[in-house]
Amino acid sequence: MRMSELSSTTDTPVPTLKFYLREHLLHAGERTSPNQAQYDDGHVERVRLVRALLEVGGLSVAQAARVVAALDSELPLSSVFGVAQRAVSIPAAIAGDDTTPDAPARPSAGRARIDALCESRGWRVYPNNPGLPLAARVLDTYAELGLQHITDTALEGYAEAADLVAAADLAAVGAVAEPTEMTRTVAAGTVLGDALLAGLRRIAQEAESFRRFPAPPSTTTTTTDPEDC
Amino acid sequence: MRMSELSSTTDTPVPTLKFYLREHLLHAGERTSPNQAQYDDGHVERVRLVRALLEVGGLSVAQAARVVAALDSELPLSSVFGVAQRAVSIPAAIAGDDTTPDAPARPSAGRARIDALCESRGWRVYPNNPGLPLAARVLDTYAELGLQHITDTALEGYAEAADLVAAADLAAVGAVAEPTEMTRTVAAGTVLGDALLAGLRRIAQEAESFRRFPAPPSTTTTTTDPEDC
Repeated sequence: MRMSELSSTTDTPVPTLKFYLREHLLHAGERTSPNQAQYDDGHVERVRLVRALLEVGGLSVAQAARVVAALDSELPLSSVFGVAQRAVSIPAAIAGDDTTPDAPARPSAGRARIDALCESRGWRVYPNNPGLPLAARVLDTYAELGLQHITDTALEGYAEAADLVAAADLAAVGAVAEPTEMTRTVAAGTVLGDALLAGLRRIAQEAESFRRFPAPPSTTTTTTDPEDC
Repeated sequence: MRMSELSSTTDTPVPTLKFYLREHLLHAGERTSPNQAQYDDGHVERVRLVRALLEVGGLSVAQAARVVAALDSELPLSSVFGVAQRAVSIPAAIAGDDTTPDAPARPSAGRARIDALCESRGWRVYPNNPGLPLAARVLDTYAELGLQHITDTALEGYAEAADLVAAADLAAVGAVAEPTEMTRTVAAGTVLGDALLAGLRRIAQEAESFRRFPAPPSTTTTTTDPEDC
């Protein structure tokens, strides 16, 4: 198909497609004349994935480009998760940490707590797992804010939840037969899974807060009361 | 203290502090002369929170300003979670959804699945809970990518994890005695909790993937093997 058809099929403006091509988010079509190229179903699939990464996952263009590069490389199965994870640092603000050494001279208090958590839960991972500095930095930030009591209370529950989600993630990946499809599953699932979890957390939080802190009986209309969503 | 001392205490450059003042992320100091103002411990605390929201939470300036405005308003306890959640749309790319109507004419397939999930889990929330459109949009995106099988397999595990995290979040909030401190706890915890969960998920994923897909015996050095982090 021509670019105009790729545009209508994916509901993506032509200038956006040209931007994706320039930024190496989309592989070039097969050139049929100096001014024309042909695109195929692989391009349609890729455009949809790139839009999901950028618009729903909230990745930067640079991060999305790293995911795409990981997809296009040949990976042994055991490395798929590691590469997809490293290609995606979330939240974006943490991405700058990639340039800092993995092992600072003095590990922070947060890092020591994460290391202890890994030991107590039997989590064995590569030392460059991107979750280690991210989780450690969050714990250090809570402490700087004088809110360490939150993580003292909540860390085990979060770790238990992370194990549940990881088991669900891996079960979904294990159900995929095709290796290239598995890579795409991991890449999309890493990014979109964070957003799904953030959404469900907000729903569950509000539901739990109504259970724990019931609102006083409404003296106005009933339309402000919570309801099954 | 003067602004220079606020700067050194919070390790934040003076131009950054001036930016925070301009963007209403930081409340004005008490003016002592046309060119000078005095700042107090409340300013120190606020600067640390704003940096956490921006740098660790990855919020935009506009989102952080909404959190700060929610902090400075007088809220009944039962509304604290709702307001903090609505002030923070994550990921940032979803924020634009705030301007779309809550109830489109035809609910998407993803929204129908989320509504069914709420019913099956007994989650009662306000219809404008921001997690509802976020989670629904993620499910729709998986489907558009041809990856609906992921959410078919994993959604229940994610929901179970969300309940665990919400219980941990509310337990942490419940342990706080002071109402204003509770608001700050909810605001910081909403943003930082997403980042903590994203970090722990990456650790747990890799640990689980090594359990499920053991790497072939290493023929090179052992330094590439995973280890307790």
